[in-house]
Amino acid sequence: MGGKLIVFEGVEGGGKTTQIERSRLWLLSRFHSGNIPRIIVTREPGGTQLGKGLRRLLLESGGENICDRAELLLYAADRAQHVENLIKPELAKGSIILCDRFTDSTIAYQGYGRGLNLNLINQLNEIATGGLQSDLTLWLDIDVEVGLSRVKSRGIRDRIEQADLEFHRRVKQGFTELAAANRQRIFRVDANRNESEVTQEIQDILTQNLFVNC
Amino acid sequence: MGGKLIVFEGVEGGGKTTQIERSRLWLLSRFHSGNIPRIIVTREPGGTQLGKGLRRLLLESGGENICDRAELLLYAADRAQHVENLIKPELAKGSIILCDRFTDSTIAYQGYGRGLNLNLINQLNEIATGGLQSDLTLWLDIDVEVGLSRVKSRGIRDRIEQADLEFHRRVKQGFTELAAANRQRIFRVDANRNESEVTQEIQDILTQNLFVNC
Repeated sequence: MGGKLIVFEGVEGGGKTTQIERSRLWLLSRFHSGNIPRIIVTREPGGTQLGKGLRRLLLESGGENICDRAELLLYAADRAQHVENLIKPELAKGSIILCDRFTDSTIAYQGYGRGLNLNLINQLNEIATGGLQSDLTLWLDIDVEVGLSRVKSRGIRDRIEQADLEFHRRVKQGFTELAAANRQRIFRVDANRNESEVTQEIQDILTQNLFVNC
Repeated sequence: MGGKLIVFEGVEGGGKTTQIERSRLWLLSRFHSGNIPRIIVTREPGGTQLGKGLRRLLLESGGENICDRAELLLYAADRAQHVENLIKPELAKGSIILCDRFTDSTIAYQGYGRGLNLNLINQLNEIATGGLQSDLTLWLDIDVEVGLSRVKSRGIRDRIEQADLEFHRRVKQGFTELAAANRQRIFRVDANRNESEVTQEIQDILTQNLFVNC
């Protein structure tokens, strides 16, 4: 079996971190006999040394406002480095990569959420990935209010602003349209249920669509 | 008179820094009466706070090899920020901008010198600038051997490698083709002569082509 790129997408509070870890453990146990592929957990932005530096740079801009195009180009640079130095070599070795966010997040967040030019985003995604797509994307879809209240309960934010709600509704709309346009690649998982139900559905989707002959 | 973007290009050792400073002083004296425009000296990469951080990041990559596409995207991010936060607002205010390197350097160095995809470079230049071009570009053209021996005499390098010579010949070829294709915008200045002759020719070119009615 060749390598696989499995991406987890969705708005905040949908349980990506938990489900990525559960998927990793499940995959490890699933391949307990025979050739065990390497399971890699990574994320964007920040999956490489350069990416970590870029994230620092975005936070430490010294009060200077980073313009939209520059920001998109920085995220694209992070992605190009991630694809070239980690994703492609690991796929070539037959690894299974579990990636927290990829190209669709840029479309949903920067395009739908912030209203930046979708053609420009698509063009930059294409440049950054050289056309590489996920083998399968799991969209953990959660009600915006539920997701944000989960984030709030982690103490990251103390209150939810109306602007947050509207922003996250636009992001969710972005994922909805992306999933409708990419039915073979993007699978919606109802993440409003409890964690175990979500985990089970993810395992079913992966089994039926990606590891059907394994 | 509206603002003007004047770019200085060419291989190392061509005297860009000296000629930019002489041009700045000349422009200041030329506009001694009436409305004096602001004269801005800037450069790429590194004309903004973000650009300085990016240059540091490129140097401090912690041993990780930065892939070609990521590097091009980082330079494009530097340029996008420079255009949006400095060049465009200053042009709108009527400033005269003297810029050390711009889009043509990326084409000559990364495209011709290092052999990266020219279509990709043109696409990224377009994204970064939004189509903005220099009003006039002065290409300080110097024999590659002369230029490199000047750089050597500054103590930056102790010897010239054959690879340096070949690389800089390809870069020069890039500028030659760009100048041939953009005769209305790019002006070749023979930089093998002494500094004062070069200065005089630059002043003549600017007077005849940019400040003809000033």
